[in-house]
Amino acid sequence: MKKRNVAGQFAAGPRGWLYFDANSIGAMPKIAPRRMAKLLAEWQALRRRGWSESDWLDAPRRLGDKLAPVIGAKKGSVIVGDSTSVNLHKALAMAAGLRRGRRVIVSEAGTFPTDLYVAQQVARRYRCRLVLVKDPSELDAAIDRRTAVVYLSHTDYRTGHRHDLRAVTRRAHARGALTVWDLSHSAGAVATDLASGDADFAVGCGYKYLCGGPGAPGYLYVAPRLQARVEPAFQGWFGHAEPMAFEPRFRAARGIQRHAVGTPAVAGNVLFEAALDVFTRVNPAELFRKHAALSQLLISLVPEELILASPSDPHRRGGFVAFRHRQAEALVEELQARRVVASVRKPNIVRFGLSPLYHRETDVRELARRLHAMLD
Amino acid sequence: MKKRNVAGQFAAGPRGWLYFDANSIGAMPKIAPRRMAKLLAEWQALRRRGWSESDWLDAPRRLGDKLAPVIGAKKGSVIVGDSTSVNLHKALAMAAGLRRGRRVIVSEAGTFPTDLYVAQQVARRYRCRLVLVKDPSELDAAIDRRTAVVYLSHTDYRTGHRHDLRAVTRRAHARGALTVWDLSHSAGAVATDLASGDADFAVGCGYKYLCGGPGAPGYLYVAPRLQARVEPAFQGWFGHAEPMAFEPRFRAARGIQRHAVGTPAVAGNVLFEAALDVFTRVNPAELFRKHAALSQLLISLVPEELILASPSDPHRRGGFVAFRHRQAEALVEELQARRVVASVRKPNIVRFGLSPLYHRETDVRELARRLHAMLD
Repeated sequence: MKKRNVAGQFAAGPRGWLYFDANSIGAMPKIAPRRMAKLLAEWQALRRRGWSESDWLDAPRRLGDKLAPVIGAKKGSVIVGDSTSVNLHKALAMAAGLRRGRRVIVSEAGTFPTDLYVAQQVARRYRCRLVLVKDPSELDAAIDRRTAVVYLSHTDYRTGHRHDLRAVTRRAHARGALTVWDLSHSAGAVATDLASGDADFAVGCGYKYLCGGPGAPGYLYVAPRLQARVEPAFQGWFGHAEPMAFEPRFRAARGIQRHAVGTPAVAGNVLFEAALDVFTRVNPAELFRKHAALSQLLISLVPEELILASPSDPHRRGGFVAFRHRQAEALVEELQARRVVASVRKPNIVRFGLSPLYHRETDVRELARRLHAMLD
Repeated sequence: MKKRNVAGQFAAGPRGWLYFDANSIGAMPKIAPRRMAKLLAEWQALRRRGWSESDWLDAPRRLGDKLAPVIGAKKGSVIVGDSTSVNLHKALAMAAGLRRGRRVIVSEAGTFPTDLYVAQQVARRYRCRLVLVKDPSELDAAIDRRTAVVYLSHTDYRTGHRHDLRAVTRRAHARGALTVWDLSHSAGAVATDLASGDADFAVGCGYKYLCGGPGAPGYLYVAPRLQARVEPAFQGWFGHAEPMAFEPRFRAARGIQRHAVGTPAVAGNVLFEAALDVFTRVNPAELFRKHAALSQLLISLVPEELILASPSDPHRRGGFVAFRHRQAEALVEELQARRVVASVRKPNIVRFGLSPLYHRETDVRELARRLHAMLD
């Protein structure tokens, strides 16, 4: 029986503070310090062989399997490790490599900058043109028979607009293109439907709604149907079929493991796993329903000076709700003085990141109360 | 005044155990748990803005500057982050890119497997032939005008043979080639002379003699004279000149920062910095002299059944001393039963990794005593 409420699994912040910056870093699971203490004790005591006798080396796949249901993926299709940006390089290079001969990568002009930097470089390397649409509505027309890859942030980091992954993927596939999704502003808060939506590749970061801790490792999803066809973008020790056989020639591991590269980031994995173990106690579908309810409540309660910048349909929104305000920066500073943490994106966007793991209705009501008190 | 002895800065392992596996994971600095507790408290309390108000984002360069004197580099030429394997991809791709048109990468058949896997892939991408010498003595003849890059493990992971970085680099440069060095089995134990030896690129791992903890981040060195000429191998957010300006086009940061890619691995950096702060208390040259003395002592004391596989000149050895023994595997297991941790590399190599930070003469004498007791 899955529990409905796991808010108690997270460490409380300073008294009286409201934290709505889950889009920047999610809260700390209470168990995290104990898990870390165990790791440090192992390190100290490893007058035995640390690498061979611990569960450190299995972590990338083990964490991937724990993460899979949260992002709508099947076991064996997700591997945890490397930064989001490095995973973007892997995913986009592999997708472009599978569609060699096609000459266009389609993305959005307003996508997250690091995604653009990766796209600019991979496009040069594969002699592709990068076509950037200004608005999601232009996407359909931009995808055609020349398109190699459709490369999108699942949720826009400014407006909170969430793409219909299934519909975009269907369109891309119908025209022979592949899809790469950056789930950073969605995963852990809203449904991402990787398997049911037939996505090809996806990546994301571990430290936002997934609560994996500061600078947590990122992750990579490769659709099972592509796993045997695609060579790893970066060959490395831990993507080898037998890393401990020290073979001179690279032989890719089966399945998702081949996309591992170097030694796992053990400390980062320990913290991330503490959070993933909270996720395994909840039903993802219920969690996403709770997120939708909290965000609808917030929208219904904020003062009218805050103009909704996100879509009004919760199925078209990602992890945060964005509002426009003429003095967004001043507003967020003033909120901080009132012990509310939110975030701003220039010129006029205020974002409230909602975590369905630990935010409660009462937090949202208190946020609205403070907003009203401030703007009155 | 630099201290001579910092052994007390490291946490003691289980009583009676001798740990000579520094080549696998170095010991834990005593301060590490306190530093980690501080990070976790910050995470919990970050009902303030974690990223903008912490020192997390500066860590890659700050740690790089602390590491620089340990590996013979100048400040501003080392960046900490990503795994060793990902850094190998960066370094080799950049070096090959700077020597486009040349068609050969020279390495060693017996170099560490992950280095070979990276070399095989980068060679394919740059249409280079990979020439693998069987013995360091063949290196000179293998480097010629077709050579783009000489790509070597500074210390061989089986024999402990350490290349003469300065001489190899001089030879490579004389023939117009660049050098890429993997310092993993040297850094923190012996001199690596990057700046004085005029190396072009180097990488290494943080968790062996550098004591950065399980799966600590790796690092990348780029010679200052090349920094302005070379574009980053993987464009990413944190290699941008102004990461927080969210510019749509990539503009490389000045200097070594351009080689950062994604969000720093904060937890891994905190542990690594605890170790680097111990290194800043010692004089590297003295440390390396101590290492040479300890390893000479070990060689002089071991039973004659152990045949030295490493060079007899300490300047030609890396962080560990390797011996051949017909029953290497059984010997290492039997040592473990006698509370000595060493490591084996098939078929017949026994390795003892010596850390000049925390190993004392008395540890080496006790190791020799147990070896004699065992083999008598």
